[in-house]
Amino acid sequence: MKLAFIGLGRMGSAMARNLLRAGHEVAVYNRTRGKAEALAADGAHAAGSLAEACRDCHAVLTMVADDRAVEEVAAGFSGALPEGAVHVSHSTISTALARRLAAAGAYVSAPVFGRPEAAEAGKLVVVAAGPAELLDRCRPVFDAIGGDTFIAGTEPWQANAVKLCGNFMIASMLESFAEAYALLRKAGVDPHLFLQAINALFASPVYANYGRIVADERFEPAGFALKLGLKDIRLALDAAQECAAPMPIASLIRDHLLAAVAQGQSELDWSSLTRIAARNAGL
Amino acid sequence: MKLAFIGLGRMGSAMARNLLRAGHEVAVYNRTRGKAEALAADGAHAAGSLAEACRDCHAVLTMVADDRAVEEVAAGFSGALPEGAVHVSHSTISTALARRLAAAGAYVSAPVFGRPEAAEAGKLVVVAAGPAELLDRCRPVFDAIGGDTFIAGTEPWQANAVKLCGNFMIASMLESFAEAYALLRKAGVDPHLFLQAINALFASPVYANYGRIVADERFEPAGFALKLGLKDIRLALDAAQECAAPMPIASLIRDHLLAAVAQGQSELDWSSLTRIAARNAGL
Amino acid sequence: MKLAFIGLGRMGSAMARNLLRAGHEVAVYNRTRGKAEALAADGAHAAGSLAEACRDCHAVLTMVADDRAVEEVAAGFSGALPEGAVHVSHSTISTALARRLAAAGAYVSAPVFGRPEAAEAGKLVVVAAGPAELLDRCRPVFDAIGGDTFIAGTEPWQANAVKLCGNFMIASMLESFAEAYALLRKAGVDPHLFLQAINALFASPVYANYGRIVADERFEPAGFALKLGLKDIRLALDAAQECAAPMPIASLIRDHLLAAVAQGQSELDWSSLTRIAARNAGL
Amino acid sequence: MKLAFIGLGRMGSAMARNLLRAGHEVAVYNRTRGKAEALAADGAHAAGSLAEACRDCHAVLTMVADDRAVEEVAAGFSGALPEGAVHVSHSTISTALARRLAAAGAYVSAPVFGRPEAAEAGKLVVVAAGPAELLDRCRPVFDAIGGDTFIAGTEPWQANAVKLCGNFMIASMLESFAEAYALLRKAGVDPHLFLQAINALFASPVYANYGRIVADERFEPAGFALKLGLKDIRLALDAAQECAAPMPIASLIRDHLLAAVAQGQSELDWSSLTRIAARNAGL
Repeated sequence: MKLAFIGLGRMGSAMARNLLRAGHEVAVYNRTRGKAEALAADGAHAAGSLAEACRDCHAVLTMVADDRAVEEVAAGFSGALPEGAVHVSHSTISTALARRLAAAGAYVSAPVFGRPEAAEAGKLVVVAAGPAELLDRCRPVFDAIGGDTFIAGTEPWQANAVKLCGNFMIASMLESFAEAYALLRKAGVDPHLFLQAINALFASPVYANYGRIVADERFEPAGFALKLGLKDIRLALDAAQECAAPMPIASLIRDHLLAAVAQGQSELDWSSLTRIAARNAGL
Repeated sequence: MKLAFIGLGRMGSAMARNLLRAGHEVAVYNRTRGKAEALAADGAHAAGSLAEACRDCHAVLTMVADDRAVEEVAAGFSGALPEGAVHVSHSTISTALARRLAAAGAYVSAPVFGRPEAAEAGKLVVVAAGPAELLDRCRPVFDAIGGDTFIAGTEPWQANAVKLCGNFMIASMLESFAEAYALLRKAGVDPHLFLQAINALFASPVYANYGRIVADERFEPAGFALKLGLKDIRLALDAAQECAAPMPIASLIRDHLLAAVAQGQSELDWSSLTRIAARNAGL
Repeated sequence: MKLAFIGLGRMGSAMARNLLRAGHEVAVYNRTRGKAEALAADGAHAAGSLAEACRDCHAVLTMVADDRAVEEVAAGFSGALPEGAVHVSHSTISTALARRLAAAGAYVSAPVFGRPEAAEAGKLVVVAAGPAELLDRCRPVFDAIGGDTFIAGTEPWQANAVKLCGNFMIASMLESFAEAYALLRKAGVDPHLFLQAINALFASPVYANYGRIVADERFEPAGFALKLGLKDIRLALDAAQECAAPMPIASLIRDHLLAAVAQGQSELDWSSLTRIAARNAGL
Repeated sequence: MKLAFIGLGRMGSAMARNLLRAGHEVAVYNRTRGKAEALAADGAHAAGSLAEACRDCHAVLTMVADDRAVEEVAAGFSGALPEGAVHVSHSTISTALARRLAAAGAYVSAPVFGRPEAAEAGKLVVVAAGPAELLDRCRPVFDAIGGDTFIAGTEPWQANAVKLCGNFMIASMLESFAEAYALLRKAGVDPHLFLQAINALFASPVYANYGRIVADERFEPAGFALKLGLKDIRLALDAAQECAAPMPIASLIRDHLLAAVAQGQSELDWSSLTRIAARNAGL
C-alpha cells in the first residue's frame, strides 16, 4: 500500500519502519524534520509537508500525542487527502474525537498496546474498529505493526474505549500494588518479597515489570509520563460519563494522579502515582 | 516428621496427601470423621480426637475456615501438644489472631495461595513467617505442599499480612474487570473481545481465568464464596488499620461486597461482586 | 443603572423584577418572547433581540442554563455592547469559561445561591469576583438581587469556583443522608426519626428541607434536575483538576449521579441520587 | 428516682448535676475518686465502689469512653444490681455490644448528641431505644439531661445506630469542608470567605463552628480526639456491615482518619482529618 505516516516519536518511528519492512511505500512526516530524515535510510520518503506526505496515499496513519495534536494534523491534511483514502488513528484519543473524525470522512481507530520494544518487534496489540470494508483495507497495516489485532466493533470510537479501559486496568494494578506495598512496608515486610509471591501467583510480565519499578521506586526516566496517564484516565472517565457507567476505581486513581501532580510528579513515570498511597500511610 | 493435620476440606486433604507422599507420618483429624477416613487409604492415621492426632507429633498443621475455627482447634489441642511441638497455621486468618497464637506458644503462620488443583499437585505458593529456628524445622512441610516458599519475616503475623494483600490484589483485579466490562458493554463492545486484548497484554492465567468467569457471569458453583471474600477483605482492612495504612481500593471493594451480600449473593463465587458495577451502570 | 437582562427563567425573571423595583432601567430578552413580555407589566422593556436589549446599557446581566448558552448569548451581543459596558454572568458556569470571558472584555462573575423563592424576595446569596473597579460599578445590581454579597477575589473565575464548591457541599450532604438513611432503614429505624435528631443537632433549613425530601422520596417535580447536578459536580471536578486538588467525595458523588442517570433519573430532582445508596443496600 | 451514675468525665458530671437539680437521688462513681467528690457538693452520694453506687437504685446510668469501658463497668455491677433495676447506657458504643447488653438484662441505650456546654445546660439531644415499658420508666432521666428525646425503636442497638449515623454526618461535613477549602485555597480564595457564603446558605451553628475551626486550622486543644472519631466511624462501618448497607463516604473518611493517625494526629481534634485533603492537594 501507499501510506502516509504522521508522528515519528519512538512508537511511531518503530511502526513506520515495520511498514517499510513489510514492503509498503511510506511517506513520513513529523513537525521536527530530523525524525523523518532518520527514516529515509530505511526507505521512507521524508515529506516536507502534510500535504506532500498524503499525496496519492491509500491511507494516512497518525500516531501523535493527544486529541489536540490529532485534530491539528487532521485539519492539516483534510484538503490534501485523495478520494477514497482512509485515516487510521493509532493515537490514544477520546471517544468523542473518534466520533467527530468518523463523521468527517473515511476513518478507522486502531490504537495499540505495547511498549516501544514491542513496537520495534512488530508485536503490538492492535485494537481496531470501524466499518468492515475499511478494516479489510487496513488489514495489511495491522499485520505489519502488530502481533495480534482485535476488532472491537463497527464504530471507530469503540476501539478507543477498549484502549482506555486497557490503560485503566494497568493503572488499577499500579494503585493496588501501592496500597499493598504501603501496608506491608508498615508491617515490616519487604515489598520485593511480596512481589515474588505475586509473580508466583499472577505469572504476568506486566505485574513483574511494574511491580519491580514500584518496589524500587524507580520513577525516572519516565516510560510513560504521569501527566499522560492522567490524560488517559480522564478520557476513560469521559467515556464512562458518555455511557453512564460509573467507574469508582478510575475516579480514585484520578484523585491520586491529581495529588501526584500537586506533588510535582507530572514528568515522572505514571507508576509514581503509588507515592500517594505511601505518603498517606506516613511513609 | 511426625505430623498432625487438622481440617480436611478440599485444600487440607490435598495438602495432607502430599505430606504422606513425601514420607511424613501424618495423623489427621476433622470434625466430620468421614474425611479423615478417606485419607487413611493414603496411609494417614485417622485420629478420633484432636488430642489423639497430636500425640507425639513434631508439628500440628491447621487448615480451617476462619479465625473462630482456628481458635477452637487451638484451644482443643493446647493441653495435648508435646513439648517442643510447633503449631503451623495454613488458614487465612487475621493478623491479630496470629499475634495471639504466637504469644501462646511455638507458632508459625504459613498461609498458602492456590486453588485446589494446585494443592493436589503440591504446587501451592507458601508464604511463611516466624522465628528462623521454627521455620527451619518446618521446611520439609513447606517443601511437600508447595512449589515455592517465601519467608515474610520473623513475626508470624507478617505472613498473614502478605496473604491478605495477595487476596486483595485478586479482588482489585475483579473490580477493575467489572468497571471496564460495564463501560464496554454499554459501549456495545463484547467483554470477551476486551478479555482477548487483556490476555495479549497481561499474559496472566489469573486474568484469563477470572476474566472469563466474569465475562460469562458464571458465578456458580462458587470456587470461593463471596462471604469468605468479604471476610478476607475485612481482615485486610483490619490489618491496614493496625498499621495505619489506608487502602482506599480495599474500602471500595468492601462496599461492593456488602452491596452484593444485600443482593443475596453471599454463597455465589466472590467474582460476582462484579455484578454491582454492572447494576450501577444500569445493566 | 441602564441594564440588559438576558435569560428569564424562574430565577432570572425574579432577579429582573427586583432590579426594576430598585429603580433600574431594565431591557429584558429571552429566546422565547413570552417571558420578556410578562416582565413588561413590571416596567421592563421587552427587547426583540440581544442587540436591542444591550443598546446603551451600562451592564448586561446573563442568567442562562450552562456554558454553551452563555457562550451563545455572549457571542450574540459581543458587537452590540456599548463602550465601557460590563458583562455580569450570574449563571453557574465553568471556571474555564469565566477565564475566557474575562479575557474577552469587561467581565464579572456573580453566581448566586438560593432557590426561586429567595430570588423573588431579593435575598439571594451573591458571590462576585472581578476587578475591584468593575465590582464597585456593579454593586447596585448585587444590592437589588441579594441579601448578602461576598467578594471572592479579583479574578472572575474565583467566584465560579466558590459557587461550584457550594453546590458540592449540598450534594455531599445529600449523599451523606442517603448512606445514613440506608443503614437506618435496614436497622428498622424510620429516617424521619433520624431527621428529627439531625435537625435538633444541625439546626439548618437546608438539612431540614432536603432531609425531608429524601426521607419522603419525593423527587418530582424536580426543583433542580439531576442532569444539572451532574453538570455542576463535573464542573467542580474540572476546577479541581485545573487546581490539582483532589476531591474524592465529589468523585464518589459523580459516580452515583452517573448511576442515577443509568437508572433513568436525569429529569428527577438531584436529591434522587440518594436512590443509589438505597439500591446498593438492597432497598 | 434513685439513680447510680458511672463515668464522671466532663459530659457525665454535667449530666449527673442536672439529674440532681431535677430532684433525683444520685449516687456517683468514677475510677478516679476526685471527680465523684466534686459532685458531692451538689448533693450526690460519692460511692466508694460500683456495688455501693448501685445499692437500691432504680437505674444505673453509664457514660464512659468506649465498648471496653462499658463492658468492664457492666461486669462490675452485674451482681450488685437490685431486682428490676435498668441499665441505661449513654456512651457511644457498638451496636453489637448494645445487643449483648440487652440480652444480659433490663437495658436501654440512650446515647446523646451535644457538646459539654449543652450537657451543662441540660440541652442534650437524647436518642433512646428499648422496650416501651423501660423507656417510660427512664423518661424522667431523659427529661433532666436533654432538651429533646427521640425514640429510635424497641431494640436498644437502634439508638446506637442513630448516634453513629449522626457522628458520621458531622465527619462527612468535615471532609466536605476539607475538599472545598483545598480547592479554593489553590484557587487563591480565602476559606473564610467561602465559610461566610456557606453560613448564609446553611445557617447551621455546626457548620459555622466546625467551618471556622477548619479554616483556622485550630486543632488543639482537642474537643473530640481524632482517635475517638476513628473509633466511631469504625463502629458505624461495623453497623453498616451487620446491616449489609454500604457507606462509601464513611469508608473514605475512615481512610483519611487512618492517614491522619499515620501523620501523628491521633490526639488532635478530629476536625484535623481535613489536613489529609489539604496535603493531597499539595498544601
